[in-house]
Amino acid sequence: MKIGFIGLGRMGAAMAANLHRAGHELTLYNRTPDKARALAGDRAHIAESVAEACRGQDAVVTMLANDEAVEGVTLGADGIVAHLPPGSLHIASSTIGIALAERLAASHAKSGQRMVSAPVFGRPEAAAAAKLFVVAAGDPGAVRDAGPIFDAIGQRTFVMGETPPTANLVKLSGNFLIASVIESLAEALALVGKGGGDQHAFLELLTSTLFPAPVYRTYGTLLVEEKFAPPGFAAPLGLKDVGLALAAGEQLRVPLPLASLLRDRFITLLAQGGDGLDWSAIGRLAAQDAGKSS
Amino acid sequence: MKIGFIGLGRMGAAMAANLHRAGHELTLYNRTPDKARALAGDRAHIAESVAEACRGQDAVVTMLANDEAVEGVTLGADGIVAHLPPGSLHIASSTIGIALAERLAASHAKSGQRMVSAPVFGRPEAAAAAKLFVVAAGDPGAVRDAGPIFDAIGQRTFVMGETPPTANLVKLSGNFLIASVIESLAEALALVGKGGGDQHAFLELLTSTLFPAPVYRTYGTLLVEEKFAPPGFAAPLGLKDVGLALAAGEQLRVPLPLASLLRDRFITLLAQGGDGLDWSAIGRLAAQDAGKSS
Amino acid sequence: MKIGFIGLGRMGAAMAANLHRAGHELTLYNRTPDKARALAGDRAHIAESVAEACRGQDAVVTMLANDEAVEGVTLGADGIVAHLPPGSLHIASSTIGIALAERLAASHAKSGQRMVSAPVFGRPEAAAAAKLFVVAAGDPGAVRDAGPIFDAIGQRTFVMGETPPTANLVKLSGNFLIASVIESLAEALALVGKGGGDQHAFLELLTSTLFPAPVYRTYGTLLVEEKFAPPGFAAPLGLKDVGLALAAGEQLRVPLPLASLLRDRFITLLAQGGDGLDWSAIGRLAAQDAGKSS
Amino acid sequence: MKIGFIGLGRMGAAMAANLHRAGHELTLYNRTPDKARALAGDRAHIAESVAEACRGQDAVVTMLANDEAVEGVTLGADGIVAHLPPGSLHIASSTIGIALAERLAASHAKSGQRMVSAPVFGRPEAAAAAKLFVVAAGDPGAVRDAGPIFDAIGQRTFVMGETPPTANLVKLSGNFLIASVIESLAEALALVGKGGGDQHAFLELLTSTLFPAPVYRTYGTLLVEEKFAPPGFAAPLGLKDVGLALAAGEQLRVPLPLASLLRDRFITLLAQGGDGLDWSAIGRLAAQDAGKSS
Repeated sequence: MKIGFIGLGRMGAAMAANLHRAGHELTLYNRTPDKARALAGDRAHIAESVAEACRGQDAVVTMLANDEAVEGVTLGADGIVAHLPPGSLHIASSTIGIALAERLAASHAKSGQRMVSAPVFGRPEAAAAAKLFVVAAGDPGAVRDAGPIFDAIGQRTFVMGETPPTANLVKLSGNFLIASVIESLAEALALVGKGGGDQHAFLELLTSTLFPAPVYRTYGTLLVEEKFAPPGFAAPLGLKDVGLALAAGEQLRVPLPLASLLRDRFITLLAQGGDGLDWSAIGRLAAQDAGKSS
Repeated sequence: MKIGFIGLGRMGAAMAANLHRAGHELTLYNRTPDKARALAGDRAHIAESVAEACRGQDAVVTMLANDEAVEGVTLGADGIVAHLPPGSLHIASSTIGIALAERLAASHAKSGQRMVSAPVFGRPEAAAAAKLFVVAAGDPGAVRDAGPIFDAIGQRTFVMGETPPTANLVKLSGNFLIASVIESLAEALALVGKGGGDQHAFLELLTSTLFPAPVYRTYGTLLVEEKFAPPGFAAPLGLKDVGLALAAGEQLRVPLPLASLLRDRFITLLAQGGDGLDWSAIGRLAAQDAGKSS
Repeated sequence: MKIGFIGLGRMGAAMAANLHRAGHELTLYNRTPDKARALAGDRAHIAESVAEACRGQDAVVTMLANDEAVEGVTLGADGIVAHLPPGSLHIASSTIGIALAERLAASHAKSGQRMVSAPVFGRPEAAAAAKLFVVAAGDPGAVRDAGPIFDAIGQRTFVMGETPPTANLVKLSGNFLIASVIESLAEALALVGKGGGDQHAFLELLTSTLFPAPVYRTYGTLLVEEKFAPPGFAAPLGLKDVGLALAAGEQLRVPLPLASLLRDRFITLLAQGGDGLDWSAIGRLAAQDAGKSS
Repeated sequence: MKIGFIGLGRMGAAMAANLHRAGHELTLYNRTPDKARALAGDRAHIAESVAEACRGQDAVVTMLANDEAVEGVTLGADGIVAHLPPGSLHIASSTIGIALAERLAASHAKSGQRMVSAPVFGRPEAAAAAKLFVVAAGDPGAVRDAGPIFDAIGQRTFVMGETPPTANLVKLSGNFLIASVIESLAEALALVGKGGGDQHAFLELLTSTLFPAPVYRTYGTLLVEEKFAPPGFAAPLGLKDVGLALAAGEQLRVPLPLASLLRDRFITLLAQGGDGLDWSAIGRLAAQDAGKSS
């Protein structure tokens, strides 16, 4: 397929590389063009503008940092809606809110384009190994046509519904669940630790018995070892995603008290200077509230 | 070993059967004696009193419903402390609070007996299959001497520390973590469901990717199918255990905001008539608060 | 003074009437013009547009429902910034968020106009009686020049700072405090009531002793008598204001766990059909969670 | 009346002095007898034991620190139930839990004595000035007979019901409401302060308009000035009372999420070394979470 790719951060760069490897004809665009050039080598075209990244493509993939970036690139005067050919696909892989996903999908529909929301689960290493999990939602025909793209970047695709925002809602819910694991582990570790128990042994017990899931092992280890820098997923992004889950909850009228607790934790972390830390650093707040000096 | 076993509920009965199967000489005691008789057959002695279940034993195991029962059986006038031979073991397997565990351990020490806290993780089926996970804490020599008992009832023993309450703290923390999974899943499912997503597909995604742990699969399924009766672990026990975790937190001065949220959920469930339901029924409250008619 | 007045809901109409009564020369504008005409009689001019309400005025006062309305009227192509004479005042009395207040103030400054944020405390009856409390913030000269306006509508003006958003922050914080009173009273009443106490006597005790404040009397009575319709201040506005307080908290990095709890209450109330009720109806949720059938 | 008075802390000593002043014949008992002697002068008898403080009295008043003390003095082998004459009154003025109040009342009834729960609102200065508010509950005849006692110590008596625990529930609910004011003010002050507003002006606004209640003025001032020592009412007592409110909520099945939040605040405060501070010091946690260095 002829594919435009917009957004070449760590995740996007890895995904684009895998699309190229799978034989797709790529045109790359990044706001700061050096990244695109470095990545492209002689393997891909470089677009000087979003418009150029869209013209004549079968599909354009976006992988950007937040709602504002996606909105600007998609709905702006020189954006995707204005320049993607009718019938072509917009594969929106960023983690964005459901309100924006609805607006983007409606705009694309009006312009005869087809949008598929396709956020992914997985850290940069998984992206590099083409081992992402893709969460897709949109018109069934569009999702089917996007199949080769998903196959090139991920190990498995989960189709969640026929309207794009459903996939975004699932992605936000997944991140909320991970943050919930961090908070619950942090409270349990603070309790066991202050009670004189061995935190490493406790974590070993948990992950050998009830919770043999990578999320528990990964974040449990970060918490026990207090290794919050450099960040794998930065705290401000955690606040953003929990905030988007809560915004979805407000729009759909679903109260989420545990997400509210998490949001307060993230704000506390940032208030205390945690912008540069991994989002799992909210876990140190439980220990701090229990009197551990920070 | 010569072992007295006190408390023959579903868990205790299964554990006792496995101890017998492993060749130990058992004396059974239950407050309502029929259970003991039914279980004993011609394989085990029946004790008419706690005292009789203790005399001459190498160890006595207790598996009772709550703090009150364990306190009565252990510290009462005709209790274990009064009748267990010096040097013998009290394997306390009930899920009890750390304050009580401290008092029991101190009493036993004064009487020259040795207490090991050894709560277990696993449902009755796991107990029947001798597949429990045993969490043990106490004097190293005592823990070692209790080894044959643990081997007979469980698949693996985790030694958590040299003072008995540590094991109880770990057990309470584990149950808190399970309840946290229930709450977080319930909120996520309410959100995805009200947003039009397929809850089964969402659960399949979660357990195939980030959360491949039995706890997520088991409770996720109960939540999606709203199968809260008959209870595997009844809601009042959930309230009891979260309450004991919070009491430990108060004693140790560790605030546990997520546990506080869970406690409020359990009280709400019971206030609305949920005494007979599984503890996972707190999960229906998230859906109810989102407007789903109950 | 020559004053344009935009937004003639119950509050705005009463404020405008008092400005007229105080001898100011008024020009009225409302999106639905009938309201303006009914109010104007032969006493005031009617503007057909926001622009017309601004031209040649010493000041324009806005009293609108929410951020969107204020943003549209102020920053829109035919808005206040575009048409208010340089040096004139924009008295922004609506309850809006601090981010918007910042943007409005910056826009006005660029156009040489002067903005004063001046939200008010008081229900429509207080507005009619010119008994509002005015919370003002902005450039000291501008605040002083706005004095005659404040004197005409309120019983007292509190100057809170030299940058407009401070007044909005104070207003939002005040509404948060009122909502906190509702929640705390509701929980206490649920507890006392279910314990067999007389709720009226309890409320009489509270307001005669520790809490002799109108807020406790007014909302306590609404709660005890469950009189939630018609709304004095509708539940969706309560959600809006608590949401704006939380947004301010996020921007300033101040976690507000009690506000988070209130937000969840409002969403629950709306999810269960409470859009048409008074915001104090969040108080029935405490009773409902305690098992009272709704 | 002939009155025994047990418990001569700051509150009890002041109440006893007022009973003497009103002409009652007093017998004083305190665990540490010096306090009783100092207070008695030549005006009152000194009892060497609880039993002696009870014999031949028309009524005995207890004003003790916590449930344990009241339980010991009342139900112990040499306690009030064992020694108060049939028909006489036990005026239980301590702030105790409803479960204990039920047990005490049942014990007294069995022994033919009459118990009235009569906790009070007011700080030591109010006690000294006989300006307490008395919250009474019990058999109407008993409450009537206790009237002269209440008149001597307080400015007004509120009769809340015919079973003693109702008064205790009301007292606990009142303290919960005060703690809620502290938390809500603390969050609002943190927000306004970090947003650049003047906290003193904000407090002046609040107490001049919406919240003209001593509780807001008193605690608001403590918060703004961060004057948490010496304690008027110590933080551990705050935790105790909120804990008793939550225990009542659990017994009656009334979830109290705001009380849960307060409990976590108190535990955090104590974990960070706040045992010697006033309970309003929970208010500094909101500022601390917002990044203020403590």
